[in-house]
Amino acid sequence: MKEKILKLIDENKYIQARNEIVKMNAVDAAGLFDEIDQRKLLIIFRILPKDIAADVFTHMDSDLQKYVIDSITDEETVDVLENLFLDDTIDFLEEMPSNVVKRILRNTNEKMRTVINQFLNYPPESAGSLMTIEYADLKKELAVKQALQYIKEIGVDKATIDTCYVINYDRVLEGVVSLRRLILSDESTVIKDIMETDVLSVNTHDDQEYVAGFFKKYDLNVMPVLDNENRLVGIITVDDIIDVIDQEATEDLHKMAAIQPSQDAYLKTSNWSLAKHRIPWLLILMISATFTGGIIQRYENALQSVVLLASFIPMLMDTGGNAGSQSSTLIIRGLALNDIKPKDILKILWKELCIGSIVGIVLAFVNFLRIYYVSKAGLLVSFTVSLTLFITVVLSKVVGGVLPIIAKQFKMDPAIMAGPLITTIVDAVTLLIYFKTATHLLNI
Amino acid sequence: MKEKILKLIDENKYIQARNEIVKMNAVDAAGLFDEIDQRKLLIIFRILPKDIAADVFTHMDSDLQKYVIDSITDEETVDVLENLFLDDTIDFLEEMPSNVVKRILRNTNEKMRTVINQFLNYPPESAGSLMTIEYADLKKELAVKQALQYIKEIGVDKATIDTCYVINYDRVLEGVVSLRRLILSDESTVIKDIMETDVLSVNTHDDQEYVAGFFKKYDLNVMPVLDNENRLVGIITVDDIIDVIDQEATEDLHKMAAIQPSQDAYLKTSNWSLAKHRIPWLLILMISATFTGGIIQRYENALQSVVLLASFIPMLMDTGGNAGSQSSTLIIRGLALNDIKPKDILKILWKELCIGSIVGIVLAFVNFLRIYYVSKAGLLVSFTVSLTLFITVVLSKVVGGVLPIIAKQFKMDPAIMAGPLITTIVDAVTLLIYFKTATHLLNI
Repeated sequence: MKEKILKLIDENKYIQARNEIVKMNAVDAAGLFDEIDQRKLLIIFRILPKDIAADVFTHMDSDLQKYVIDSITDEETVDVLENLFLDDTIDFLEEMPSNVVKRILRNTNEKMRTVINQFLNYPPESAGSLMTIEYADLKKELAVKQALQYIKEIGVDKATIDTCYVINYDRVLEGVVSLRRLILSDESTVIKDIMETDVLSVNTHDDQEYVAGFFKKYDLNVMPVLDNENRLVGIITVDDIIDVIDQEATEDLHKMAAIQPSQDAYLKTSNWSLAKHRIPWLLILMISATFTGGIIQRYENALQSVVLLASFIPMLMDTGGNAGSQSSTLIIRGLALNDIKPKDILKILWKELCIGSIVGIVLAFVNFLRIYYVSKAGLLVSFTVSLTLFITVVLSKVVGGVLPIIAKQFKMDPAIMAGPLITTIVDAVTLLIYFKTATHLLNI
Repeated sequence: MKEKILKLIDENKYIQARNEIVKMNAVDAAGLFDEIDQRKLLIIFRILPKDIAADVFTHMDSDLQKYVIDSITDEETVDVLENLFLDDTIDFLEEMPSNVVKRILRNTNEKMRTVINQFLNYPPESAGSLMTIEYADLKKELAVKQALQYIKEIGVDKATIDTCYVINYDRVLEGVVSLRRLILSDESTVIKDIMETDVLSVNTHDDQEYVAGFFKKYDLNVMPVLDNENRLVGIITVDDIIDVIDQEATEDLHKMAAIQPSQDAYLKTSNWSLAKHRIPWLLILMISATFTGGIIQRYENALQSVVLLASFIPMLMDTGGNAGSQSSTLIIRGLALNDIKPKDILKILWKELCIGSIVGIVLAFVNFLRIYYVSKAGLLVSFTVSLTLFITVVLSKVVGGVLPIIAKQFKMDPAIMAGPLITTIVDAVTLLIYFKTATHLLNI
């Protein structure tokens, strides 16, 4: 299919190509546009039916969107924008440089301009910035027959009519009724009698993560957004929520890897900007790690008399870091998914203490066998290293399990308390235990 | 509201409590049931209308579900199950111990038993195990009016009627038509003329991650599932996909933290089982880290003459590990979200080389100032440490950026190539560079 269309375009058979593209899914068509020679792309784009052109435009890569908008006339731009849903328009404008945005705003009518400006002013990651205004609204006094008739008239332009919102004359939300319910009800039934009045809603300023939580908890497909006076101003659909869920998971993951989070695609972000997001935490952690160095310096004499001790430092540090990361990752993710609540802190402390003991005994035992029998390190040294390993593992587990919860209680992001930071903390403690044990047991 | 109902139950005013619960959202009602005294809970559960009882049951915690099923009669169990959608029944049965499953299967009719057994046999994490069979199907010869009439008759029992599936007499999927389209079309239009024939579908054996990818790419709310003969056997709805997306992100995160992934909630999993999931990778990494120890042993003499060198080992190891984790995390997530493709490997190699150089120069510079001016470590030692740091950062970035892609190309899970493994690899290389540079520059 794709190859066939590309071939048609190659042979300048534009009309035939268009007739094939029209049959395609808009997402796939947008993908196809990515591979067409840019001049030919404009020809095809111009001869597509307006609604399909707009639909394909929505799914294009932002670079390609910019190219298209830069190349078509103002009039054509208006045609495209008029066929977009408002949330898609906003998504697109947010990606464009300001000169393109200005040009587009200049070419829309005043009413639309006001709406767009209002949307661009909602805080990023707020419910307002996610919503669209193309919803179907009804009045509660209508009978089902009239309601269906009304939906038939207005439905074509709406993002969804599967759920209809019942509002009063001040636009205050009074209830919700699904198209399904309308269809399954008798024609003479009045909306008031079948609408649900216990409606879940969010405010324009609610954070997108909070909104996504609602969708997950109640298995929603769409949700109304109200302003501070409980007036219906928009709806959020589940497809945008799926993007939010991915975004939030990415953000957590970045923070857990000590990167300042960013939503920009890796390959499209400049090296400078990527470096800038990575340097701050690396610097902080680097400087913190010098404390660990200080501990080694303090025990220089011990090291000088038994240099062999130094060779176990990497293994102890790595194992401690890994053990702590495991716990902190489980807890951070549990907190993000609401499986774990801050009030569970004592339960977690105890659990990690138990798990740490089991894991610590197994690792210490294997480690002892390895360095006593394979590395032939002497009984006391083997014992010192294994004992330190055990204590390190237990401690790392407890620290890794508890710190994310403490962070949450102090209204910090638990994701900061992940591998890198835990490792730095655990390293220092590990070395302290190591040298304390060694000087004591080995009499140095 | 919640407090009021709990108070009513406390005062044994069950009927009044029921009348309030009936008005609640089923998810919230299930949450409320968690807090009711268990004996009283059964009384309330029994006097709820059957469909609401089933709905609340679906959203209960599996422990509570088990308690309810264990306590009610076989007849009551049948009542509950008959009011559940099939996918919820399967979800519930998968959580129950085998004696409960057996008892339930004994009490369902033979047809249902066959269906349930078939579903329980789909591979976990397959499209088959996610789907439900309550969909609305139409024949393409129907007129819109007849179709709507038919939907009205069968609609009440269906999971969704917002999208209807057009199948032939062998149940082969021929097209799809939305309820919206039906409503907006003329009553005499024939389904054949308004149905979409370019239908996206998955096979019962497709992996859930693949299915979730489809939902994301095409912004779907529901998707048909076909068997190997292209017959429609079920549908998957977007609420189940949201769970899949969370699950897959959790799974990746666990692997990245060197834990064998598990879907069980942390607080409900036994300490033994949690420990068992953590030990294997810790053991592997612990044993790998002893190679790093071997390197230190090889340079024992160098260390003995300049013991100060040992004190920079933790900082070098940690910074290398962190720098590598940053890159591998970005790449692993990019691969999971399909923003990065294996064919981009050379671009990424080059990008990480550039970013690594920028980050490396900044860190090495700050580090030099710190240890030369603050720790007063001597020019040559400061230079040795900073040069090693620079090389380590560049190398970690490249290794961290490239290894996940190589893993993917070898059909391994890129998530394994995360922090812990990268750190272990980078540590060894760092120490080798460190001692090589030191012996060379310091003449030891």
